[in-house]
Amino acid sequence: MNTAASSLAERILADVAAISRDGEGITRESYGAGEARAMEVIEAHAAALGLAAERDRYQNLWLRLPEDTRSAPPVVIGSHLDSVPQGGNFDGLAGVVAGMLVLAGLRGRAAAVPPLRVLALRGEESAWYGKAYTGSLALLGRLPASALALRHRSGEGSLGEAMRRAGADVDAIARGEALLGAGEIAAYLELHIEQGPVMVARGWPAAVVTGIRGNYRHNRVRCVGETGHSGAVPRWLRKDALLAVAELLSRMDEHWRVLLQMGMDLVMTTGICTTPVQSHAVSVIPGEVAFSFELRSQDQETLERFYALMQEECRAIARSRGVVFEFDERLYSAPAMLDEGWIARLEDAGRRRGAVVERIASGAGHDAAVFANAGIPAAMVFVRNAHGSHNVHEAMDVADLLEGVALLGGALESVAEHAV
Amino acid sequence: MNTAASSLAERILADVAAISRDGEGITRESYGAGEARAMEVIEAHAAALGLAAERDRYQNLWLRLPEDTRSAPPVVIGSHLDSVPQGGNFDGLAGVVAGMLVLAGLRGRAAAVPPLRVLALRGEESAWYGKAYTGSLALLGRLPASALALRHRSGEGSLGEAMRRAGADVDAIARGEALLGAGEIAAYLELHIEQGPVMVARGWPAAVVTGIRGNYRHNRVRCVGETGHSGAVPRWLRKDALLAVAELLSRMDEHWRVLLQMGMDLVMTTGICTTPVQSHAVSVIPGEVAFSFELRSQDQETLERFYALMQEECRAIARSRGVVFEFDERLYSAPAMLDEGWIARLEDAGRRRGAVVERIASGAGHDAAVFANAGIPAAMVFVRNAHGSHNVHEAMDVADLLEGVALLGGALESVAEHAV
Repeated sequence: MNTAASSLAERILADVAAISRDGEGITRESYGAGEARAMEVIEAHAAALGLAAERDRYQNLWLRLPEDTRSAPPVVIGSHLDSVPQGGNFDGLAGVVAGMLVLAGLRGRAAAVPPLRVLALRGEESAWYGKAYTGSLALLGRLPASALALRHRSGEGSLGEAMRRAGADVDAIARGEALLGAGEIAAYLELHIEQGPVMVARGWPAAVVTGIRGNYRHNRVRCVGETGHSGAVPRWLRKDALLAVAELLSRMDEHWRVLLQMGMDLVMTTGICTTPVQSHAVSVIPGEVAFSFELRSQDQETLERFYALMQEECRAIARSRGVVFEFDERLYSAPAMLDEGWIARLEDAGRRRGAVVERIASGAGHDAAVFANAGIPAAMVFVRNAHGSHNVHEAMDVADLLEGVALLGGALESVAEHAV
Repeated sequence: MNTAASSLAERILADVAAISRDGEGITRESYGAGEARAMEVIEAHAAALGLAAERDRYQNLWLRLPEDTRSAPPVVIGSHLDSVPQGGNFDGLAGVVAGMLVLAGLRGRAAAVPPLRVLALRGEESAWYGKAYTGSLALLGRLPASALALRHRSGEGSLGEAMRRAGADVDAIARGEALLGAGEIAAYLELHIEQGPVMVARGWPAAVVTGIRGNYRHNRVRCVGETGHSGAVPRWLRKDALLAVAELLSRMDEHWRVLLQMGMDLVMTTGICTTPVQSHAVSVIPGEVAFSFELRSQDQETLERFYALMQEECRAIARSRGVVFEFDERLYSAPAMLDEGWIARLEDAGRRRGAVVERIASGAGHDAAVFANAGIPAAMVFVRNAHGSHNVHEAMDVADLLEGVALLGGALESVAEHAV
């Protein structure tokens, strides 16, 4: 089985990669050509495996064992088929392949697990239309109609137009019509490559995700001081915006270090920081710095308190350095907690295989958060992956993928043993 | 005379400002269009004043009284015509106007002073090509040939190319050919607006400069870490280039504060600091930051030791944060002592006008330092100016400019009285 599963996974991954190459990396545009071709490759493999396949009215793809005609709310193993521009092959696709491997492993014994469907979603990546999870949001009737007007990254065409071209019932999406109510899905499980370096560093082939971090974000904070001649203004008369921001970031970095020692879940990132590109100069004291500020945590209170600490430091630095901090709108994504019952089942499945499966937080967002925040029990498995994601260097071993698949399969079988 | 001189100064300043406005401030690019237009305006005013004007082979402009054909080494009153991007009108230009006012005041009595030339230099500001005093250095055969390859701040074109477009004999500059030997200039005098806040605070219309701070400068230091997903990489696996630079600047700022308490003369400025503008994003850990670093002091040893301390901090931060600091060429301007004889003559000129003229150190560099370091007796007069320089808010009263002009004229006449 393992060898067969391994070569099946290799074939599907290779066949989808073959139709997605863009010269630099992998491109499968949301509701676009690459995503559509990937779906056709998946359908062809599903047919070859003897799986029943059908598309819903929003052009997501559903697979099941043909003999599994039970009508009770199914467990859904889902993931997405789209990618970022010049991305990698495994972000999204690995989860769909994992679902197919679980189904293939259950052929002829559907009753060994609860009613089960595999779902290949569209439109997860925000890179194309500036909004993530459009496929899962539409499915659950939670995509705001206004999102259909979002422009493509090229500036040409809208999300709604692309959905219509892909064959989706855009009028129903605009009405917020859910294809499935929350009560019609027993659970949502998703396997995804890890997008950070922790599992490679720790040597974990697969891990169970505890929650999906929410975030507070400012895209643009301005620190305004006063420009001046670098040689002629003494330190005590300066209002150096850059030294103010450097002090802020250094203080927050130190607070972050301490809070991690205290066991909190938190990451802090300033990805953008610039003196004014049109006017800055080596010999001009910077009178303005623009920077982004992002916090992510699984814990709402940690987000709230660390954010308040940042504001307090800004006030102190503004007083001592004669600068002003100006914040744009604060953006917020809620943390999503994953289902403790399913987390335990996935860990049990590992234990039964003789492995200690570690827990890890997801720093990136996933469709699973959409299902979880709709009230559907959701869980995730991460698979080890080198070099992060959203780039052509993503590197997942199929052996690790199979470890993740084994956790999903084991958890499903334990549900069937105990009560659906 | 005073009213006539005042309105003449106003007219020249206004006419040059009119051709330099950029929408935000004043822009006269070194060896570029604004500087060239300013030189043409000065030539037109010189012609109207009946002054003889000629350009040298490096496209600096020389003015004299037409009757002053004496061949002995002249006293030169010089300054520059270029500005920083979005700068002010008086930095540089005020000194050229001062020289013209001195000449205009001597019309018909050239023999009242030693042989006298007014010099309008090019290329003083480092903002355009990262190197200051290129006009005076080239004139004296002291511009390193390597400087001709320095890139424009936009990344497009080199200093050598701009000089050639401006009509300068770049091949001679590259050979280090001096247009004047040190022995061919009796003294170099320069009037400049003060670029710091001291004279406004103390109520001094004009002051005599004692010395000019030297500097160490890196136009571009790269701190290279590793990009990563802002949500998915934990603190212990990050190599955040921005937090590394923030720590460096905060540490150096604290050292600076302490050394000032110990009585040292020092300023430290990072005027440019940017994450990569083409690829940075709110949710990407910055893998690279580029920044400038500049130190200025009247004391060579202070420069040397503080620079070594910065290097040591970079090594420590590189070790602790897994980043690398890459330095471009270190640029150096030596501190310059000004000539005690001319300082005394300028003070005497004030005393004869019934004013006590104070002494002040120059925090900023000036072409006068290039002449002084070439062995030419040099002196400077500062004129009161609000709001610093290198910004659109520079504010000099023409009445104060005339005070400075009177000091220059008085000092020149006292030389003629005593012996050239």
